[in-house]
Amino acid sequence: MQPLLDHHVHGVVLDTVEPDRFELLMNEGGSPAPPGTSHWEAPLGWAIRRWCAPVLDLDPLSGPDDYLSRRAELGLEASRRLLGGAGLSAAYLDTGHRSGEVCDPAQFGRLAGVRTREVVRVEAVFEAVAAQQPGDATGLGERFAAALHERAREAVGLKSIVAYRHGFDLDPAPPSARDVAAAAAAWLAPRGRATAPPSGLRLQDPVLLRHALWTAADLAREQGLPLQLHAGFGDADLDLHRADPVVFTPWVRAWSAWPVPLVFLHCYPYHRQAGYLASIWPQVYFDLGAALNHTGAQAGTVLAEALELTPFTKLLYSSDAFGLAELVYLGAVQHRRLLTRVLDGWVAAGEATAADTERIRALVAAGNAGRIYPTRTPGG
Amino acid sequence: MQPLLDHHVHGVVLDTVEPDRFELLMNEGGSPAPPGTSHWEAPLGWAIRRWCAPVLDLDPLSGPDDYLSRRAELGLEASRRLLGGAGLSAAYLDTGHRSGEVCDPAQFGRLAGVRTREVVRVEAVFEAVAAQQPGDATGLGERFAAALHERAREAVGLKSIVAYRHGFDLDPAPPSARDVAAAAAAWLAPRGRATAPPSGLRLQDPVLLRHALWTAADLAREQGLPLQLHAGFGDADLDLHRADPVVFTPWVRAWSAWPVPLVFLHCYPYHRQAGYLASIWPQVYFDLGAALNHTGAQAGTVLAEALELTPFTKLLYSSDAFGLAELVYLGAVQHRRLLTRVLDGWVAAGEATAADTERIRALVAAGNAGRIYPTRTPGG
Amino acid sequence: MQPLLDHHVHGVVLDTVEPDRFELLMNEGGSPAPPGTSHWEAPLGWAIRRWCAPVLDLDPLSGPDDYLSRRAELGLEASRRLLGGAGLSAAYLDTGHRSGEVCDPAQFGRLAGVRTREVVRVEAVFEAVAAQQPGDATGLGERFAAALHERAREAVGLKSIVAYRHGFDLDPAPPSARDVAAAAAAWLAPRGRATAPPSGLRLQDPVLLRHALWTAADLAREQGLPLQLHAGFGDADLDLHRADPVVFTPWVRAWSAWPVPLVFLHCYPYHRQAGYLASIWPQVYFDLGAALNHTGAQAGTVLAEALELTPFTKLLYSSDAFGLAELVYLGAVQHRRLLTRVLDGWVAAGEATAADTERIRALVAAGNAGRIYPTRTPGG
Repeated sequence: MQPLLDHHVHGVVLDTVEPDRFELLMNEGGSPAPPGTSHWEAPLGWAIRRWCAPVLDLDPLSGPDDYLSRRAELGLEASRRLLGGAGLSAAYLDTGHRSGEVCDPAQFGRLAGVRTREVVRVEAVFEAVAAQQPGDATGLGERFAAALHERAREAVGLKSIVAYRHGFDLDPAPPSARDVAAAAAAWLAPRGRATAPPSGLRLQDPVLLRHALWTAADLAREQGLPLQLHAGFGDADLDLHRADPVVFTPWVRAWSAWPVPLVFLHCYPYHRQAGYLASIWPQVYFDLGAALNHTGAQAGTVLAEALELTPFTKLLYSSDAFGLAELVYLGAVQHRRLLTRVLDGWVAAGEATAADTERIRALVAAGNAGRIYPTRTPGG
Repeated sequence: MQPLLDHHVHGVVLDTVEPDRFELLMNEGGSPAPPGTSHWEAPLGWAIRRWCAPVLDLDPLSGPDDYLSRRAELGLEASRRLLGGAGLSAAYLDTGHRSGEVCDPAQFGRLAGVRTREVVRVEAVFEAVAAQQPGDATGLGERFAAALHERAREAVGLKSIVAYRHGFDLDPAPPSARDVAAAAAAWLAPRGRATAPPSGLRLQDPVLLRHALWTAADLAREQGLPLQLHAGFGDADLDLHRADPVVFTPWVRAWSAWPVPLVFLHCYPYHRQAGYLASIWPQVYFDLGAALNHTGAQAGTVLAEALELTPFTKLLYSSDAFGLAELVYLGAVQHRRLLTRVLDGWVAAGEATAADTERIRALVAAGNAGRIYPTRTPGG
Repeated sequence: MQPLLDHHVHGVVLDTVEPDRFELLMNEGGSPAPPGTSHWEAPLGWAIRRWCAPVLDLDPLSGPDDYLSRRAELGLEASRRLLGGAGLSAAYLDTGHRSGEVCDPAQFGRLAGVRTREVVRVEAVFEAVAAQQPGDATGLGERFAAALHERAREAVGLKSIVAYRHGFDLDPAPPSARDVAAAAAAWLAPRGRATAPPSGLRLQDPVLLRHALWTAADLAREQGLPLQLHAGFGDADLDLHRADPVVFTPWVRAWSAWPVPLVFLHCYPYHRQAGYLASIWPQVYFDLGAALNHTGAQAGTVLAEALELTPFTKLLYSSDAFGLAELVYLGAVQHRRLLTRVLDGWVAAGEATAADTERIRALVAAGNAGRIYPTRTPGG
């Protein structure tokens, strides 16, 4: 089994996961299913029953109750089996999303038996800096830049969720220092110095987001880091059409002379658009992230579409798992079996040689990520 | 044969349909085909020849001339066979579109042998209220609300075609009473009291449309009715990209605390986007409506894509037939055979059990609609 | 082998093509592949190895080095075989794109052994007229109209690349003569009479583009010419979502009373949207252009989707080849084999008769183009 470099994943919950919480972690929306229904009754639910149940010694397609009982019975061993069974060579974890609920990279690495590294979420750093002095906007832009620089020292990449916080339809011009200062002051002004709850510091001002993006890209250029960008499929915060990666084209163009790999994440249902950008712009890469898990039995169609136009040197593997170890395992299963299905079809039809398809498999499994992510060790 | 609840359909023509008119009713554009061509030379035309000809005792794929001759020969019996052959358990008819050309729900029900109920088109009620006193804007917003309330008493749902009249890119804030009054005055002002032709009263002012939507949603909340929303595939009035259901996300978000099911209709080619919304928002549902008819031999691809991300509890069946009884029959045939094709493929591949797929089949056929539409009887 | 009318193609390079230049001509982006990678490692590269290698007496899927050696060895004979092997009945060449690098229609026709005609690129004529007197905006709009009229005398069609220069999101109202004069003055003003480099005259002003479009459509109406419109898949100049053909709907509507065929080119990944427009608007046609070449082994999916909703009388064949004779040949191979695959599937499934599919094949190969393009001979 070819090891996969999961370049875009999050921590998982290591405690027992109660049935209701398990359901919430199966659905990106974050709300319970409507009365009389269950989040198990969705493509992801069936895929977990199909592929994860055997890892817990159950028959494929066992029912949700049996699954959850067995999972509880196994305790941490369930997560260990699922993480270990994914067959990863390395995992790069975004640590900026609900990090209090899930394990950290070191715990993930021990349980999965793999090397882990961190990807720093740009907007989370910005908000953390603001929360340190919530009533004080002075030099906020500079303080953020310094903090991001510090955080990036041990990271393999940066990640922006601007698609969530505004959409990609942002003016690509770098804002002036004066504009940033004014926007920072306006953002923090209504909060009393001592009263501002950190949770209220949600970065969504367009000027500050543009500053964050330019700062991140500049740092990525300097440090030789890729910049990940959430695109497409996400949660209730998102206006999906504004997260279409081609809407970010003016930014891609603005940075095209810089050797900063831009990696669009998920992209569904705009994965063809991502493939288009990857075919046109040398520095653009993408993955399907959580899409292969959430489209279950039909995920092969999505992967095949992602392979229509995309250079084979531009697609990356990731699970984008969050919360459930199942998602780490399932992502790897879906990717391996479905990529094999597409590529075997090409060989059978005479459209590629076996050696050609082996090469693609290796590139997507880890070769492409290996080329664009830094290899420096922590603290290096 | 599992009965289908056709939750979104219109009346059909019961008189003889002349060949030219038949062609016009086969095409959503409403214009004759270019010189030297025919609307029969399209996927829908072939599908009618394939699936409807045998219902009229003709060989599958008989030519258009033979088909129309036999249809004329059978007279009303042709429509009776097609409506009855659809195997419906109930039909919910939108009565607000060219209702003078087609039969009413009662006639439809008698011919098809099924229970029918009405879905009230919001914009049609607004225009009818305005046409009653075309020169008088006073209290128009309130008069519309009262009329909609009255009409909804015997209905199972409300429907908006705001996607046609403006596009989903509308400010989701409810307009003030003052704004509504001003917009109503401006809309009706240019018309002389006696001279305004009712056909001229086309509701497309954004403020009035927003008022209509908020009024409808509020009524739906109060009465426990779903709100249907035309999306995607439609006619020449439409700017398709502005009818992408995700463009309506700010409205979905604004109403997310209300238990009002929002049902996007058709959605093609944005059916993946609809599936995304249905997966994220508990109150969002959708159907493929006329898309399965109009995509003929390739409709299986469309249905399979609609099943990628969508919870199985969120997809509804409808034919969206208008004018031709063929479309009621064909919608049911397409749905049954293509859903079976997809689901049998899943079972064969070990991705689902037969019991799992039976459950989906029942949910989409009528279970999901049964859960969200009211069961009260007329006048109740 | 059924001859194809390639209604949308460019000249090819007749000199030896060095390996680096060959790679650049394989990729629409126009940049070298990232270090350590090659443009051969993309779906188009594999398709050339699969389908073109045998034309040069090599085994299918021979490697790039062998392919380029053999190509160089054969010299002009390679291009002759590829162009001749495409089996065209006629080729309509857009002569307005980097025409200095490629052969002209007459050379193409001699090498391919087919009749060729010219399609005039509207924006190129506008820029050429401006370059004649770069410091003089007087009467520019009128001079352009006269030049376009003159150029169109021997052409079979006009083509606009407004999707590249602005996007389809342009006000569809015809600009006033005064607005055109002011925009022309502003466009040419900063250039000194003698110093303006012709290459600097890039037409992208919205008012001038609108004038160019209206002038072209008016001339097309008068002369009975189709108007081609680049849509979707293109190069780094493009913001893809603004090249979605449905964004041009207000213009389609504005011209709907005119008998001017509008032919959207490529359209990928918005080919379903193009099919929608073709199904609704009598005057709308489209092709898949370069998409079938660039999507290689997965192109069958794209073609099948283009056949979902589209009337069979509305799809045209083209290769959109530029630069490499391979692209002319490959386009024809992809189209023939993939259309056959889809149509044979329909016959096998009982969804069409063999005679039905023969008719489609003939319509798309040349029948539809034959109906909308003029048959007049040069100078006629």
